[in-house]
Amino acid sequence: MVLTTDTEREPTAWRTIDTAPLSDDTLAQVDGWWRAANYLSVGQIYLLSNPLLRTPLSRDDVKPRLLGHWGTTPGLNFIYAHLNRAIREREQPTMYVTGPGHGGPGLVANAYLDGTYSEVYSDVTADEEGMRRLFRQFSFPGGIPSHVAPETPGSIHEGGELGYALSHAYGAAFDNPDLLVAAVVGDGEAETGPLATSWHSNKFTHRVNDGVVLPILHLNGYKIANPTVLARIPEDDLRSLMIGYGYEPHFFTATEEAEHATAHREFAQLLDTVLDQIAEIKAWPEDDDRTPRWPMIVFRTPKGWTGPAYIDGKKSTGSWRAHQVPLSSARDTPEHLQVLNDWLGSYRADELFDADGKLDPMIAELAPPGGLRMSAISHANGGLLLRDLRLPDFRDYAVEVPAPGATIAESTRILGNWLTEVIRLNPDNFRIFGPDETASNRLQSVYEATDKQWNAEYESPEVDEHLARAGRVMEMLSEHQCQGWLEGYLLTGRHGLFNCYEAFIHIVDSMMNQHAKWLKVTNEIPWRRPIASLNYLLSSHVWRQDHNGFSHQDPGFIDHVINKKAEVVRVYLPPDANTLLSTYDHCLRSRQYVNVVVAGKQPSPNFLTMDEAVAHCTRGLGIWEWAGTEEAGENPDVVVATCGDIPTLEGLAAVDILRKQLPELKIRFVNVVDLMRLQDEKEHPHGLTNREFDMIFTRDRPVIFAYHGYPWLIHRLTYRRAVNENIHVRGYKEEGTTTTPFDMVMLNDLDRYHLVMDVIDRVPSLGSRYATLRQQMVDKRLAARQYTRAHGEDIPEVRDWAWPSSHDQSFAADAASTGGDNE
Amino acid sequence: MVLTTDTEREPTAWRTIDTAPLSDDTLAQVDGWWRAANYLSVGQIYLLSNPLLRTPLSRDDVKPRLLGHWGTTPGLNFIYAHLNRAIREREQPTMYVTGPGHGGPGLVANAYLDGTYSEVYSDVTADEEGMRRLFRQFSFPGGIPSHVAPETPGSIHEGGELGYALSHAYGAAFDNPDLLVAAVVGDGEAETGPLATSWHSNKFTHRVNDGVVLPILHLNGYKIANPTVLARIPEDDLRSLMIGYGYEPHFFTATEEAEHATAHREFAQLLDTVLDQIAEIKAWPEDDDRTPRWPMIVFRTPKGWTGPAYIDGKKSTGSWRAHQVPLSSARDTPEHLQVLNDWLGSYRADELFDADGKLDPMIAELAPPGGLRMSAISHANGGLLLRDLRLPDFRDYAVEVPAPGATIAESTRILGNWLTEVIRLNPDNFRIFGPDETASNRLQSVYEATDKQWNAEYESPEVDEHLARAGRVMEMLSEHQCQGWLEGYLLTGRHGLFNCYEAFIHIVDSMMNQHAKWLKVTNEIPWRRPIASLNYLLSSHVWRQDHNGFSHQDPGFIDHVINKKAEVVRVYLPPDANTLLSTYDHCLRSRQYVNVVVAGKQPSPNFLTMDEAVAHCTRGLGIWEWAGTEEAGENPDVVVATCGDIPTLEGLAAVDILRKQLPELKIRFVNVVDLMRLQDEKEHPHGLTNREFDMIFTRDRPVIFAYHGYPWLIHRLTYRRAVNENIHVRGYKEEGTTTTPFDMVMLNDLDRYHLVMDVIDRVPSLGSRYATLRQQMVDKRLAARQYTRAHGEDIPEVRDWAWPSSHDQSFAADAASTGGDNE
Repeated sequence: MVLTTDTEREPTAWRTIDTAPLSDDTLAQVDGWWRAANYLSVGQIYLLSNPLLRTPLSRDDVKPRLLGHWGTTPGLNFIYAHLNRAIREREQPTMYVTGPGHGGPGLVANAYLDGTYSEVYSDVTADEEGMRRLFRQFSFPGGIPSHVAPETPGSIHEGGELGYALSHAYGAAFDNPDLLVAAVVGDGEAETGPLATSWHSNKFTHRVNDGVVLPILHLNGYKIANPTVLARIPEDDLRSLMIGYGYEPHFFTATEEAEHATAHREFAQLLDTVLDQIAEIKAWPEDDDRTPRWPMIVFRTPKGWTGPAYIDGKKSTGSWRAHQVPLSSARDTPEHLQVLNDWLGSYRADELFDADGKLDPMIAELAPPGGLRMSAISHANGGLLLRDLRLPDFRDYAVEVPAPGATIAESTRILGNWLTEVIRLNPDNFRIFGPDETASNRLQSVYEATDKQWNAEYESPEVDEHLARAGRVMEMLSEHQCQGWLEGYLLTGRHGLFNCYEAFIHIVDSMMNQHAKWLKVTNEIPWRRPIASLNYLLSSHVWRQDHNGFSHQDPGFIDHVINKKAEVVRVYLPPDANTLLSTYDHCLRSRQYVNVVVAGKQPSPNFLTMDEAVAHCTRGLGIWEWAGTEEAGENPDVVVATCGDIPTLEGLAAVDILRKQLPELKIRFVNVVDLMRLQDEKEHPHGLTNREFDMIFTRDRPVIFAYHGYPWLIHRLTYRRAVNENIHVRGYKEEGTTTTPFDMVMLNDLDRYHLVMDVIDRVPSLGSRYATLRQQMVDKRLAARQYTRAHGEDIPEVRDWAWPSSHDQSFAADAASTGGDNE
Repeated sequence: MVLTTDTEREPTAWRTIDTAPLSDDTLAQVDGWWRAANYLSVGQIYLLSNPLLRTPLSRDDVKPRLLGHWGTTPGLNFIYAHLNRAIREREQPTMYVTGPGHGGPGLVANAYLDGTYSEVYSDVTADEEGMRRLFRQFSFPGGIPSHVAPETPGSIHEGGELGYALSHAYGAAFDNPDLLVAAVVGDGEAETGPLATSWHSNKFTHRVNDGVVLPILHLNGYKIANPTVLARIPEDDLRSLMIGYGYEPHFFTATEEAEHATAHREFAQLLDTVLDQIAEIKAWPEDDDRTPRWPMIVFRTPKGWTGPAYIDGKKSTGSWRAHQVPLSSARDTPEHLQVLNDWLGSYRADELFDADGKLDPMIAELAPPGGLRMSAISHANGGLLLRDLRLPDFRDYAVEVPAPGATIAESTRILGNWLTEVIRLNPDNFRIFGPDETASNRLQSVYEATDKQWNAEYESPEVDEHLARAGRVMEMLSEHQCQGWLEGYLLTGRHGLFNCYEAFIHIVDSMMNQHAKWLKVTNEIPWRRPIASLNYLLSSHVWRQDHNGFSHQDPGFIDHVINKKAEVVRVYLPPDANTLLSTYDHCLRSRQYVNVVVAGKQPSPNFLTMDEAVAHCTRGLGIWEWAGTEEAGENPDVVVATCGDIPTLEGLAAVDILRKQLPELKIRFVNVVDLMRLQDEKEHPHGLTNREFDMIFTRDRPVIFAYHGYPWLIHRLTYRRAVNENIHVRGYKEEGTTTTPFDMVMLNDLDRYHLVMDVIDRVPSLGSRYATLRQQMVDKRLAARQYTRAHGEDIPEVRDWAWPSSHDQSFAADAASTGGDNE
């Protein structure tokens, strides 16, 4: 089993070699490999049986439904064959990232040829029967997906959704100084936004500490039904574009008419040139500060290269018609069957495989040894390389909380103090990613331990604060890049977090989808080892967009995330600094999750001591006895529940009013950190049982729930609970711009006064006796609004509100008399 | 009132002029305008009162909370002033799109200077009191947003979320042959993916039929806390990049030290050169087929230009520290107040405004006349220009439906036939956008009427099918581009649709957010006229991803959309071809909505005649009497409800089984087209009243609901209905890959056999007597699964299933006897 770590091996990276022209033997080897991979690719798309064509191809040998993609595949196979040769000669650890991941048959074929496939899937053997299984399983019910999926050895990148090949490749290269990542970019993919900006990743890569990405722009000219842009601009423009992106482009062109031998010779030479050039840059003295111009390859080939030139009189190879399954049925007519037969025959499989279906040993020798095979390299099964983070004790970073609300902190700044030490203790496997917002999100103390990695030009120290050639913070104004880099970094066995404005994390909704799907599938693949979780820190959240307003308000990422499989998603809304510390410690220790943490960056009160915070976070939700007024052994009159920092503040302020105005009202105060606790245990692994839930929220009391996001989510999560119909949720209502914090909560009816009104409206025992109090609340809102309009800031009564210490004393007295414990 | 259409005006576009150097008078005008705009911008950010500094600046004149963004603003003002001059001289209709839309104070200032602001907001007058209001309202409670928002005259682009300036600009230019769109791209924004690919829009623009976008890359060097990438690469690389993108770059640089007069002279000359160059290209003969190389400008200035060079000893102007509010408090110390005083004083406002606060007429003259003012141009209030589409009668495109399920069609292909005529009838104000999927989504008959617009290189007609220099279909493999172009097109008063794979529409989640927010806000702005709806056609949906599998499965865009304001979102899932036609006709007539239409492209049965379809779509949901077995005047035993084409097929197949196996069971069959009908009337304008809802779904019968997307959504929408707890939903469960249609529905328990089991499990009267039937269903599922695994296609019993005509006869007989009507 090769899929083990390989740490003892001496680094062999970045050799230059004597670049002699390809010998005839090696040419035969490379061409044989390519033909074999192409044959196996076509076989996977078309054949059910008769894999070696031992008998004349018959209709029944052909799959009834033809699924998959041929167009990109022969190009991917060609590059794979040539990289094999180069890796063997240079002993260069190399990953292969295929942007056009729909070329799945190609990658599966290569993994089969180099032996990895049979090692991880023991019934797909290196013989005729194994080949039959290989063909049959492809895109077949109960078989394997048609893309380069988690099931494909050697892959960290499905490429179903296009645009992230280079981001993933660079993410993989960070902190892997000996690793070459050959990244094929499809020319369709190259039209996407994320890919178009990801070329600039070279400005964020360190020459010494990081590996090297070799982008290979595969211009096969066509998408599903159109030419591609980059294949249809003048070659001079394309060269300029790549130079503009900071690369040195090398052009390779193969036409349909070109001799394959010539193509092999030319590409081998170009590849050697390029790899030598990389090795030379890598060999510069360590302190050489020049900005390297890394090479890239423009690889122009016919689409569907080696396939039938024409099918039914229409141009196939070299056109968009070769994109998926060029010959859309081989069972309908003898002529079509013959086309397939000739096509398969063109690869001369009898020269490649022996009578048992075993690959010619001469060709097989092209594969690099063991863990150097691109399908077997351990980086592509990152969990194999994953080391636990060394985490400082987060308790040492606690804020002092002598009494609830007695101190103030910016939660994310406190987290930043702890992260600073995380960075110090883990200098080569932990990074922070963010779109120019790490300081804005108040994590800036990390710059005491590290810098932002920046390999573009410098100006003066006056303005270039915390920039350095190497650093643990990665900032580019592209959420796509941050997410893609982090994914690549995690998938290759490292740790990290992505801090982002809450509203704009929607920019990567679809990327999160794909990563969550990848995690879900890998959970079911025994040979895939668990990787570190993808941790989000969403600060600068919906409730505090004073500078920016409505366009920056959207708490819906949470809703988006929980549509993914329950076993891979977690959502936390710590209400203060100590709970944030405890939550993030948990997240950085976890595996195989998408953890969403929403936490404010503005000064706000601390409610829990560190011991209380740990207990609260461990429970995920709980009763804050010090805030409520219930008596032991009796049901409360009302439950005030909160989730999120601003809602918690407003909820407590509402309770403060209620305690003063309605001292007889028995209030239970509940706070939720782990949103998934609300769900039924059958829906989510974190879900409470009904009995546990009912104990906390009651079965029948009114529950006034102040929530950070869209209110419906709380109803969804509590849908199956007894108290469900009594839950009244206040949250974000998508209501326009405001510019003071309290105006914002008022606009969405989440403010303390409205919550008091909700309690009056919903506790049956209160009724119209409290009409005066209710009206006072309406007046308070009006006064608060008028004040902000007159003064441009919140009314002092609100701005300066703090949880009164008198409540603690009164409750402490009660608690003492009932044996409660309020430490 | 200038905000009217201006169609009588003779086109004056694309003049060249004698480009003499700027005269001293004009220089004074331009510089005066710039100083005035800068002064008004600083005033908006800082001042509550004393707008003309008639008395010494005091602490109380300064806003207590300083919000907004200064850094980009002086650059935006500079360009605006110079464009004013050019527009006046050339009478060139020009829109101004500002990517860094957070430079709101600048655009508001310019609209105030040219008079537009006072025209639309009559209390913000052109005098001292108006100026005081202008300052005070900015980013102030009850005032205006800090960004270039819908409230800002002349804007179609908020720029809160960065990345779409060029896409919007090109969208605005399509089919506006006389329009110049000056589009400022921030260098922060330039790092985003969508922006990085949007430069390629030039390959999709027609020289004659479309307007011209002049990109102005504003390199002010810094983002929130970092330098920008494009400001920190060698100038040669930047030049190469722009040439690579297909532009001719022109460089302008102003340093902090440069004389403003010199900067004005240089930029004026450059602008004239560039505009002449554009005019010359526009003047080529109409049939000249050369690919134009349009100019663009690299505009390098200090960030926060003209602001304080240093604040508290730290570099401010020319650094990231100038991004937001450089002087973060002017009230705390006399020194800070003095900094603000000096800063404001540097603009010499007393030379610009008279004692009443009126702009010096010499400077005011710089503004172009009336509708040529960039803040007043009617294209930026596109509803003014909106013409109704000429729509062919969709009934003429109906498929024949002699009996339910008796004919088969690909719904989107039928829609394509109608769209073909829509294109013919509306040759200059309707376009179809799609990421290389228009044919894949089966709309290809539109190519009988038009082509795909393509202005990159051509190869041979053999492969370049349906490509032309001008055409109504816009295809680029970037969902961001499709969405951005369409938004720009709609916001300037035209119509269109975006067809996309369902899973990948999540790529534009965040763009949809911003557009929905824009619509929501414009609904509340009287002078903004309604624009055509943003219409999605999501085909290639979650249930039919045979070629691609799990990565292409996600129905969650619907969930995302309905978190937006109810008054702007609509979701339709027509079950067959005729309902799709009726739905889309409705969508293309609507205004101010986001319409999401999900419809399959695979052959599937037609259920409703056109008359029935129109009635069904008008109701939005309804009982299909022909499918059910209930008796008039009696409650059914069970309601089988469906929404979406595949769920409807499975639901009907389940009813078929039930009718045969349990003839005594009284079934009501309900189909939902308009998903929002399910919601409470108080939640959504389309919502049914409880009485209407209960009539259809009953108050107490089991409802088995087969739904296209994530099941929770149905619970959410029906949360307040009496029958809510009896609704049992089957939908997508995020469950892995399969490769046959029925395997896919089985994997998610949405198949006919499972629905029958659900009915047995939930109708109390059935119970264990039907254990045998239930077990048969389990066996049927197993047999179906085994068949697909053996044969690679669906079991014939399922594949060939059709709604039996015998049911129709039996029901027709019933209906006749009860007075029903089944036409």
